[in-house]
Amino acid sequence: MQIQTIVDYFKKERERHLEELKQFLRIPSISAVTDHKGDILHCAEWVAESLRQAGMENVEIMPTEGHPVVYADWLHAPDAPTVLIYGHYDVQPADPLELWEMEPFEPVIKDGKLFGRGSTDDKGQLMLHVKAVEAFMQTEGKLPVNVKFCIEGEEEIASKHLPAFVETHTDKLAADLITLSDTQMHGPGQPTLMYGLRGLAGIELSVQGANSDLHSGLYGGAVQNPIHALSELLASFHDAEGRVAVEGFYDEVIPLSQQEREAFKKVEPDEEKIRKDLQVKDLYGEKGYSFYEQTTSRPTLEITSVSGGFQGEGIKPIIPNLATAKIACRLVAAQVPDHVMDAIEDHVVKHTPAGVQVSVKRSLWGNPFITPIDHPVMVSAAKAYEETYGAYPVYTRSGGSIPIVEVFGRLLEAPVVMLGFGLPGENLHAPNEHFHLENWDKGLETISRFWLKIAQSNE
Amino acid sequence: MQIQTIVDYFKKERERHLEELKQFLRIPSISAVTDHKGDILHCAEWVAESLRQAGMENVEIMPTEGHPVVYADWLHAPDAPTVLIYGHYDVQPADPLELWEMEPFEPVIKDGKLFGRGSTDDKGQLMLHVKAVEAFMQTEGKLPVNVKFCIEGEEEIASKHLPAFVETHTDKLAADLITLSDTQMHGPGQPTLMYGLRGLAGIELSVQGANSDLHSGLYGGAVQNPIHALSELLASFHDAEGRVAVEGFYDEVIPLSQQEREAFKKVEPDEEKIRKDLQVKDLYGEKGYSFYEQTTSRPTLEITSVSGGFQGEGIKPIIPNLATAKIACRLVAAQVPDHVMDAIEDHVVKHTPAGVQVSVKRSLWGNPFITPIDHPVMVSAAKAYEETYGAYPVYTRSGGSIPIVEVFGRLLEAPVVMLGFGLPGENLHAPNEHFHLENWDKGLETISRFWLKIAQSNE
Repeated sequence: MQIQTIVDYFKKERERHLEELKQFLRIPSISAVTDHKGDILHCAEWVAESLRQAGMENVEIMPTEGHPVVYADWLHAPDAPTVLIYGHYDVQPADPLELWEMEPFEPVIKDGKLFGRGSTDDKGQLMLHVKAVEAFMQTEGKLPVNVKFCIEGEEEIASKHLPAFVETHTDKLAADLITLSDTQMHGPGQPTLMYGLRGLAGIELSVQGANSDLHSGLYGGAVQNPIHALSELLASFHDAEGRVAVEGFYDEVIPLSQQEREAFKKVEPDEEKIRKDLQVKDLYGEKGYSFYEQTTSRPTLEITSVSGGFQGEGIKPIIPNLATAKIACRLVAAQVPDHVMDAIEDHVVKHTPAGVQVSVKRSLWGNPFITPIDHPVMVSAAKAYEETYGAYPVYTRSGGSIPIVEVFGRLLEAPVVMLGFGLPGENLHAPNEHFHLENWDKGLETISRFWLKIAQSNE
Repeated sequence: MQIQTIVDYFKKERERHLEELKQFLRIPSISAVTDHKGDILHCAEWVAESLRQAGMENVEIMPTEGHPVVYADWLHAPDAPTVLIYGHYDVQPADPLELWEMEPFEPVIKDGKLFGRGSTDDKGQLMLHVKAVEAFMQTEGKLPVNVKFCIEGEEEIASKHLPAFVETHTDKLAADLITLSDTQMHGPGQPTLMYGLRGLAGIELSVQGANSDLHSGLYGGAVQNPIHALSELLASFHDAEGRVAVEGFYDEVIPLSQQEREAFKKVEPDEEKIRKDLQVKDLYGEKGYSFYEQTTSRPTLEITSVSGGFQGEGIKPIIPNLATAKIACRLVAAQVPDHVMDAIEDHVVKHTPAGVQVSVKRSLWGNPFITPIDHPVMVSAAKAYEETYGAYPVYTRSGGSIPIVEVFGRLLEAPVVMLGFGLPGENLHAPNEHFHLENWDKGLETISRFWLKIAQSNE
């Protein structure tokens, strides 16, 4: 199969493809709002029909406890790997409506950009994969790889029912790799492979002193104050150089390779600008790591809230009997949330000051995710990008968490490749959301090249 | 003058005196409730008339911005000292009414106790002084000392207007000593001289990080978290042995004398019982001092409240941009609130972690109070107690603060002697308040003996 044939097809059909994308964008498939349940169902049907038209088989609208998942497959490339494509057909609400310069659900093209809710997140990016299927089917009559689609309708409401769905259907969804286009490039013309996401571990601490609040005049100075004890405990979580001082906290961390640290130099943000934007005198973090590394590739332990004593105006001179704090850790591969929480609990037991009792409640779990940048599928993706954009991709990690990515990778035991074609500033989740059509064209080509490459690599 | 004559008079007039006290108790002079403003004024007139009947001169009901002060004097003992007697004619509300075994404002005598709101706090104790005046005037035609009364109507609402009143009338109120009976004895039959009260200094801390809350995934680990910074700061206020670690904090403290520490041994509470009552595993305080000393005679620094981050249910993974804490210090003689707050501010400046700004607001001031136990007026009081009760008084300090005591002592430059005749368990501020009439009789005698003694000491 020749990539030029495919690219020519995209050129020829461009206007129709974009018209179809506009149809997709006109459906207000807002998952968060019950009133839009009909639109959600209509949208799932639209996606299913679009997949059928492209040439996919076994198209199904599969129910979940929430909004349905659209499944489809084409499995006639016996010697080639199977790619599972994830995406979502639901969108964010359009509020505040008055800040839109156009109707959010009446898409328009202006200055090479397609405006409309869902244009970049994720309908526009999802359609790249559907139209790549169509191109191969129309020109070659077949696909270079086996393809499965799993398109959900609840991404904007935290993919509530998808993990259970994936777990129930591991056989049906089984694949050699998972791809998605739902993230952003580092900048215009700069292809980007985001290869890591951080995980989460959340713990709540509760420090109990006496059995009731005490008069600070009558007891102050002779009983442990839970706020003092909690402060000591919280202060003990970090050392003087910003490292987490919990024994064993870093044990499972895969250290950054020299290759990764080199790659990050291309995407490091301007720390001085960040400092000024946040209006802080100094940035502050783990010694020996850059801002970028600290926020994407190193695990952190942050106290997200603290509370104790009288919360009204003025000073009520009491020793409270309770003080609480909540902790959120961001984890990196290959930390296991429960192992990290074990280490924190041990630390708490060891550092609990005299005179109080501390109880611990675990309340957030999320595994970190990584696909090594030297994994063969990542190498193929990098080449596909380079040939399309004329630029080698940068490698990035995100400091945040997209738990579903890790769920796919873990349950299907396959690498995940995030082929993001969004750009920073495209206003996802905000008014005037748009998608640069330059990346529509390049996205179609990159995906097609990627399929051809992974098909070859299997030969 | 012979004390026996006076004591005989008290015996003879006992029934009438108690009837008059009951009249006083029947007036619901609740200062906190606006509806009782008429009762307050009626009560002030009742007190004024009672003072006139006893033989006091220049009786005046003096307005303040709140409830009036009743003033009276008798100044015909040119060679004797002048005693200013403080007391209050207002009472606490009687709620919850359903827990009273009698009507709160319909006093009854039962088992040697007089029940009714105000019986021990402070109408019963105040009347001891009025009736002592009456006894001397009726039997001797004169008093052994010069006497002034300053009776307020706002003690139960924090003596709001009295400091300004005293400041305005220092000449009129000038005295060689101030006495009051508004505190408690250590136990039945055990006369008590409470000679010290702690002062207060209150400070509010505010730790500012970035200019808004930050996503913990995108910034966590690279900017200072105000809760971390605050925790470090709060933990730095004490050392590992429970001492306040603020430089200069103890500089102005008058150390406890051996005599005081010996005296405390007679009043030390059972620490094991306290520990059990509070249901804590250990008590915890400044090393080298007993529970009693820690809570009455040593200064303390207590964090009374702390707050930062999302206060709702669950974990919201943000770095808050603000964290706050409030601090209440209890001070002992001769600490000065503003000096202590200077030291704390210096400490804060020195210990502020990188990446945040801390602001400080001073918000509570109260001087500590002490009358040295070897002061001549204290020695006279001790003798008067011993001769009346057949037991030498114990010396106590309170960990709490009664700011007006210090105000009198400071503005009038005179020692204050607290001649308390209440007993623990007499339910002041609670239902079924009562006063043991044994201490009515002994109170009258003690006060009379005290006046005779200080008159002699001046000769």
